[in-house]
Amino acid sequence: MSQKRETDIWVDCLQYANWSEQIFQEMQIGQVDCVHVTIAYHENFRETILNVEAWNRWFEALPNRICHAHSAADIRQAKADGKTAIIYGFQNPSPIEDDIGLVEIWHQLGARFMQLTYNNQSLLATGCYEETDSGITRMGREVIAEMNRVGLVVDMSHSAEGSTLEAMEVSSRPIAITHANPASWHPARRNKSRAILEGLSQTDGMIGFSLYPHHLQGGSDCSLEAFCRMIADTAEIMGIDHIGIGSDLCQDQPDSIVEWMRNGRWTRTKDFGEGSSDAPGFPPQPDWFETNAHMPNIASGLAAVGFNADEVQKIMGGNWMRFFEANFGPQPKA
Amino acid sequence: MSQKRETDIWVDCLQYANWSEQIFQEMQIGQVDCVHVTIAYHENFRETILNVEAWNRWFEALPNRICHAHSAADIRQAKADGKTAIIYGFQNPSPIEDDIGLVEIWHQLGARFMQLTYNNQSLLATGCYEETDSGITRMGREVIAEMNRVGLVVDMSHSAEGSTLEAMEVSSRPIAITHANPASWHPARRNKSRAILEGLSQTDGMIGFSLYPHHLQGGSDCSLEAFCRMIADTAEIMGIDHIGIGSDLCQDQPDSIVEWMRNGRWTRTKDFGEGSSDAPGFPPQPDWFETNAHMPNIASGLAAVGFNADEVQKIMGGNWMRFFEANFGPQPKA
Repeated sequence: MSQKRETDIWVDCLQYANWSEQIFQEMQIGQVDCVHVTIAYHENFRETILNVEAWNRWFEALPNRICHAHSAADIRQAKADGKTAIIYGFQNPSPIEDDIGLVEIWHQLGARFMQLTYNNQSLLATGCYEETDSGITRMGREVIAEMNRVGLVVDMSHSAEGSTLEAMEVSSRPIAITHANPASWHPARRNKSRAILEGLSQTDGMIGFSLYPHHLQGGSDCSLEAFCRMIADTAEIMGIDHIGIGSDLCQDQPDSIVEWMRNGRWTRTKDFGEGSSDAPGFPPQPDWFETNAHMPNIASGLAAVGFNADEVQKIMGGNWMRFFEANFGPQPKA
Repeated sequence: MSQKRETDIWVDCLQYANWSEQIFQEMQIGQVDCVHVTIAYHENFRETILNVEAWNRWFEALPNRICHAHSAADIRQAKADGKTAIIYGFQNPSPIEDDIGLVEIWHQLGARFMQLTYNNQSLLATGCYEETDSGITRMGREVIAEMNRVGLVVDMSHSAEGSTLEAMEVSSRPIAITHANPASWHPARRNKSRAILEGLSQTDGMIGFSLYPHHLQGGSDCSLEAFCRMIADTAEIMGIDHIGIGSDLCQDQPDSIVEWMRNGRWTRTKDFGEGSSDAPGFPPQPDWFETNAHMPNIASGLAAVGFNADEVQKIMGGNWMRFFEANFGPQPKA
């Protein structure tokens, strides 16, 4: 069923599961070589450090299953050692607080992606749920330059349209949308316009396709074929080299976690984000992608809609690996 | 004048200067290949991060002069590249606050030495200025084990006698006194007993000899010959393999800094530490060791009191390099 060849590396460029030995085992069953994990939604610097401490405990407890990766080379080494490589990222710039010096500190601690916003206005840019999109802020321009310098990737998954397009202009290195789908396929507020998709393609950026039901046409009932046809359609717009997977898998999380994601500490009333008061919790995953163990289904689905083996591998991880190779280290001197 | 050979590596295992390009230049003039710098006296976690940020700015500004070293291999590479390697350390456990998980976080950020106390009682042990020495605390035993696991060296330079001897027992890896001299030579409260010197030698630990005038017989007037004779006498007790240099050079610091060292935020009255109300500030350095550029004087002085070239090199850095090689990485599994 799986299309995977010995040299293929599969990457899921966003998950926030309720981590457990079982989930790490499922990564190995699903042949997932690398997962970009969220280590902060609204956490400040010190709280995010506590999350790194928790990851340190996982790496200590399961040294044969998982390891922390700082680079594409680390991911290849992890695969050679039979482990899944874990990359850190933030869905909000809260871990740098108001201190640009923390960008490099976080890079030193292994963070490789940082969203400039999570739905709301941040110190850096506007989130996709705000009414007014004021674009990249003064601090935002400085922080993007610093992220470019050290090799921390700008992720605009939860940002507003204008802020996202402006980030591509301001950033001297490619940016990413780690987890979203085209809005033309499913008009969720988190999905992205054709202008963004084209911009990513033209700037050597990347999008990771999301399996989160609120991002899928038909939600939890979306078929594997429909998902893979959407990828084929997007490849027509963006080309084959700038697309990958960013499943947004939130496996085994209690509903309290989606509340934390949506409400953090910023509101006293309850915001339902992509959900609603009738359906406030996590929606069920499509039955063909419930856990990491289902990753081969995506590869099979891509082959079934007509991608050849090389194209499947690019989408399943090759493109992300090329992107990591180019963007996780310090910016080469001009 | 200098005894230095091509392959020799010189290490100063403690300085807290008022860093400047001039001082880094003096390190190169003095052929100092590696300096262990203090990045915290009383700073909490977040404040110490700010100090790391300041060091990041130095490394960015002077990439051809200095670099941050995590290992003995990094130091050798720095020397090959014509740079001085900088190692981070704390003179107090304040940067880990009450959180044992921060031990590994700090190791990941490159800290390699941590004193369990700075003069006063800490959460971990008793400082050398307390009246009652209650030894290693409950948290202290846990933190020592964690430091042993990750490769963060226990430094007891400012600790009380009993706590120091107990640390050697509790620690499964060698400990260090990075900067102090034998109390038999000069009975300062910070200088160390014969029991401690012998203990260090028997456990493969290290002492770095201090050039801070309050630790010297005769203070600022101590002669190079007297200092080197003290080293020769200590070699008789400890052997040639467990001694090095830890100058405690506080070059160009204003007196407000020695006040911060002594008083932190723990007292409303002024404690004069090794000074006095008549002489509250930094004492002048001996004229043969005022800056890093004077480091060759020590090598010459050691040769003059009868050490051969191999012995001089061990004291000037070879012993510290062997110690770093063995103690800066994760503890090998038993």
